[in-house]
Amino acid sequence: MPTIAALEKWYRAHEEEILRDFMAFLRFPSISTDPTYAPEVRKTARWLSAYMNAFGLKTTIWESSGLPAVFGEDLRAGPDKPTVLIYHHYDVQPVDPLELWESPPFDPVIRDQKVYARGAVDNKGQCFYTLTALKALYQLMGTLPVNVKVFIEGEEESGGPGTLEIIRQKKEALRADHLLIVDLDIPAPGMPAITVGMRGLVALNIECSNSSGDLHSGVHGGIALNPNRALVQMLAKLWDPSGRVAVPGFYDRVKPFPKEHRDHLDLSFDEAAYKKEFGVRAFAGEEGCSLRESNWLRPTLEINGMSGGYTGTGFKTVIPAKASAKISCRLVPDQDPEEIAKQIETYLREVAPQGIEVHVSVHHGAPAFQGKLDSSIVKTAALAYEEVLGKPCKYLLCGASVPIVVDLAEASGAEVALIGMGLATDAIHAPNEHFGLDRFEMGYLTIGRIIGGR
Amino acid sequence: MPTIAALEKWYRAHEEEILRDFMAFLRFPSISTDPTYAPEVRKTARWLSAYMNAFGLKTTIWESSGLPAVFGEDLRAGPDKPTVLIYHHYDVQPVDPLELWESPPFDPVIRDQKVYARGAVDNKGQCFYTLTALKALYQLMGTLPVNVKVFIEGEEESGGPGTLEIIRQKKEALRADHLLIVDLDIPAPGMPAITVGMRGLVALNIECSNSSGDLHSGVHGGIALNPNRALVQMLAKLWDPSGRVAVPGFYDRVKPFPKEHRDHLDLSFDEAAYKKEFGVRAFAGEEGCSLRESNWLRPTLEINGMSGGYTGTGFKTVIPAKASAKISCRLVPDQDPEEIAKQIETYLREVAPQGIEVHVSVHHGAPAFQGKLDSSIVKTAALAYEEVLGKPCKYLLCGASVPIVVDLAEASGAEVALIGMGLATDAIHAPNEHFGLDRFEMGYLTIGRIIGGR
Repeated sequence: MPTIAALEKWYRAHEEEILRDFMAFLRFPSISTDPTYAPEVRKTARWLSAYMNAFGLKTTIWESSGLPAVFGEDLRAGPDKPTVLIYHHYDVQPVDPLELWESPPFDPVIRDQKVYARGAVDNKGQCFYTLTALKALYQLMGTLPVNVKVFIEGEEESGGPGTLEIIRQKKEALRADHLLIVDLDIPAPGMPAITVGMRGLVALNIECSNSSGDLHSGVHGGIALNPNRALVQMLAKLWDPSGRVAVPGFYDRVKPFPKEHRDHLDLSFDEAAYKKEFGVRAFAGEEGCSLRESNWLRPTLEINGMSGGYTGTGFKTVIPAKASAKISCRLVPDQDPEEIAKQIETYLREVAPQGIEVHVSVHHGAPAFQGKLDSSIVKTAALAYEEVLGKPCKYLLCGASVPIVVDLAEASGAEVALIGMGLATDAIHAPNEHFGLDRFEMGYLTIGRIIGGR
Repeated sequence: MPTIAALEKWYRAHEEEILRDFMAFLRFPSISTDPTYAPEVRKTARWLSAYMNAFGLKTTIWESSGLPAVFGEDLRAGPDKPTVLIYHHYDVQPVDPLELWESPPFDPVIRDQKVYARGAVDNKGQCFYTLTALKALYQLMGTLPVNVKVFIEGEEESGGPGTLEIIRQKKEALRADHLLIVDLDIPAPGMPAITVGMRGLVALNIECSNSSGDLHSGVHGGIALNPNRALVQMLAKLWDPSGRVAVPGFYDRVKPFPKEHRDHLDLSFDEAAYKKEFGVRAFAGEEGCSLRESNWLRPTLEINGMSGGYTGTGFKTVIPAKASAKISCRLVPDQDPEEIAKQIETYLREVAPQGIEVHVSVHHGAPAFQGKLDSSIVKTAALAYEEVLGKPCKYLLCGASVPIVVDLAEASGAEVALIGMGLATDAIHAPNEHFGLDRFEMGYLTIGRIIGGR
C-alpha cells in the first residue's frame, strides 16, 4: 500500500522515462474519424499492447469490424479480491484547423510545464497516467492488490461500430465490480471532483440537393432553388426564439433532475472567467435555465459543421448542386438517441422547401449516463482525490459524452465512477490541446491510491 | 466581303490548326479568383498577345494593380470607317469540385464533337472564335474593312480592381462606335438571339464569430452560442415566405420593365426541358412572377458558399469559433451595388444574435446594363445571326452579369450588342464545362460576317 510520498518518489526517479514514453504515445496520429488514418490507429494499439505487457499486464488486441481495442488484465490478486475495470481510449480527434496549431499536433512539445499535442489530455494523457500508476505499483508492490482490467478503445471519437461489438462479445472478460471511466475534467486546478452523469449524444448528417450539377447563379438565379438557402432555412427552424430545440417531441422524455442528486451538484458557473478564458461573447442558454443548467441538465442541438458551394479564396457565383450539415445533440437521461434522430429527420423533411431532396444519415448515438453517488467506487475515488488534492471532493455532471459508458456499465455489471484530471481550458477537440504536467502527476497519484491503496 | 461559304471553306482548310491553337489557349489555368494562379494568368495574357500579333493585330498588354488586359487593334481602315470594339475575357472560374470532372479541366479533350475544359465556352471558347474570324478575314481580305479593337480582360470572374483602372486610364484607346460583348448565350441550338440587358452583381462575404477558438460541443453546448447557428438564423431571414428578398430597401429602386422593350423579349421558359436538363426539382421564383421573369426582370440573392466547423470525413463534435458565407445579388437597372451591399450589411447586423461578432466585406459590384434594341450594331449583329443560323433573331435579357459592360459602354461611347454562342447547358462555372464545335464555328461565322460583311 504505497503512500502518496512513495508514489511521488517513484515518479521523480522515473520522470524522464515516463515523459519519453508518453511522447512516443502522443506521436501516433491515431485519428479514428478519418479512415485514412486507420493504419496509424492500429499501430498505436500494437504499441500500447506491447507497452502494457512489458510492465506486467497480460494484453490482447481485440479486433472488430471497426478499429481494435487494447485489453490488459492481471487477475492474480485472486477471486476474493475485487476487480476494477479501467476505461480509456487511445484514438484522438482530427486536428484541423491545422494552421492554428503553434506546434505540430503529433510532434509533442513541453512548453511552460504543459504538454502540447493532439490527445495530450483526451485521452492519451489521462490513459498514460493510469498506465504509469500501474507500472509504479508493480515496481513498488511487486504485484497489484486487486484484480485489474484495462480496456482502451480506439473509436471513442468516431463512434464506430467496433467497440460496441467488442463489448458485446467480450462481456465475460469485461465483468468487474468497479468501473473507472478516466476521461473527465475537474472544475478547476487542484479541485477534486467526480462526475456522476454525462449527457448522451446523437449525430446526423443532413444533405440538401436540387440540381444534377452546380449552376451559374446569374443564369439560374430566380429559377433554381439554392440548396444553401434551403438548408439554412431548415436549420434555422431547429430552435425557437427561447433557445429551446423546436423539434416536436424532443423534450417529451426529459424529466426534471432528481432533487436528491441536484443538491449535491456544484452548479456554480463563473461567467466572467468563462468569457475571459474562451473569448465567448454570445451565449446559448435556454430561457429559464442558468448556463450551467443548460449545459448539464438540458439537451442541446448544435451544427458542428456545414458546407455548401464555393468556400475557397475569392468568389464563385454558383448555385451549388448540394449543401450539407453535420448536426449533433447532447441528450439527458431517458432521451433515446434513435428516437431523437428520427424526430429531427421527420421535422427537417417537414420544413424542407418543396422539391428539395433531403438525405439524412444517422452517424452514432449513445444515451446519457446517470451514476450513483453512494457506490463504493465513487467513495474510494473521492477519498483518493481528497488525499491527493487536499480538498473536499465535488460532484459534477458533464455536458459531454463518453458514448460507451452505458454499454460498458451494463456489460461489466460494475458500479461506475467517472473521473479525470482534464480542465475545460485544455483545448481538447481544438488546436493546441495541452495538459499540465502537474495534473498528469496528480492523475497518476490518484489512480495509484485508488488501486494501490486498498 | 467574304461570303458565309468563303468563311466556311477557310475554316475547313484550317480546322486542325484552329483546334490546336484553341487547345493551347485552354491549357492555361488562368483562374483569376485565386491569387495562387496569378503567374498563370499573366502567362495566358502573353500567349494571347503574341497570338493576336502574329495574325495581324497590333497588341499591347495593359498592366494594372490587378491582372493585365490584352489589347489588340487595327485602325488601318481609316477614320472614315466605323470602329468596332470587341470585348472578351481570358480568365476562367475555379474548377472545384475537381472530383466531378470527367477529364482534367486544363487538359482539353474533344468528346462527341464538344470541347471539354474550364473556359471551353466562358470565355476562352467565345474569344477564340472571334480571333479565328479576324485571322480568316486577314487571310481572305488582306486587310480588315473596319477599324477593329479587341479588349480581352483578365479579371471578369474575380471582379478585381485592375480592369476598371485600365478602362479609366485607356478611355481614349477604347473609344469606338460599336461595342460587341461576346460572352453570352443563345436560347437553344441554332436559335439566333441578341441580349439587350444583363443583371448587375454585388457580392459580400459574411463572417460570424464568437469564441477565441473552436470549442467542444459537449463541454460548451448550452453555454456558448454556435456561430453556425447564428449564421443560419441570419441567412434564413434574407428571404420572406413569398420568395422575395427581405432586406429593407432592396426593391426600392426596382421599376417595372418598360413595356416597349418587354414586348420584344422572348420570355418563354420550358420548365419541363429545364427540369430534364439540370435535374432541378425545387424552384425559386418570386411570387407573382414567372420563372423567366424572376430570372431576367427581378433581382435575386444567393448564398454561393458557406462553411463553418468540421466538414471532413466522419464527425467532429465542435462548436466552431467562426462560420462564414459568401452571398451575392443579381441586380436589375437602377439598383446600386454599393447601396444594396450596405442594406444587406445593416440588416444582417440587425438580425444577428446578441454578442455574435459579424464581419462583412464587400467583394465586388456592377450595376445592371440596359441596351438599345434599335442601334446599328444590334441590327448588324441580328442580320449576321439570321444569315448564319437561318432563323429570325430573338431579343433576350440575361440573368447573369458581365460586370464591366456599363463601364466599357461609357468609356468607349459605343452602342452595345451582347452576343455569343453559349448555351445554358454548357456547364459554365461548373464541372465538365464544354462547348460544341458546331457552335464554335457558328460563332466564327457570325463574327466573320459582322466585321467582314460591312
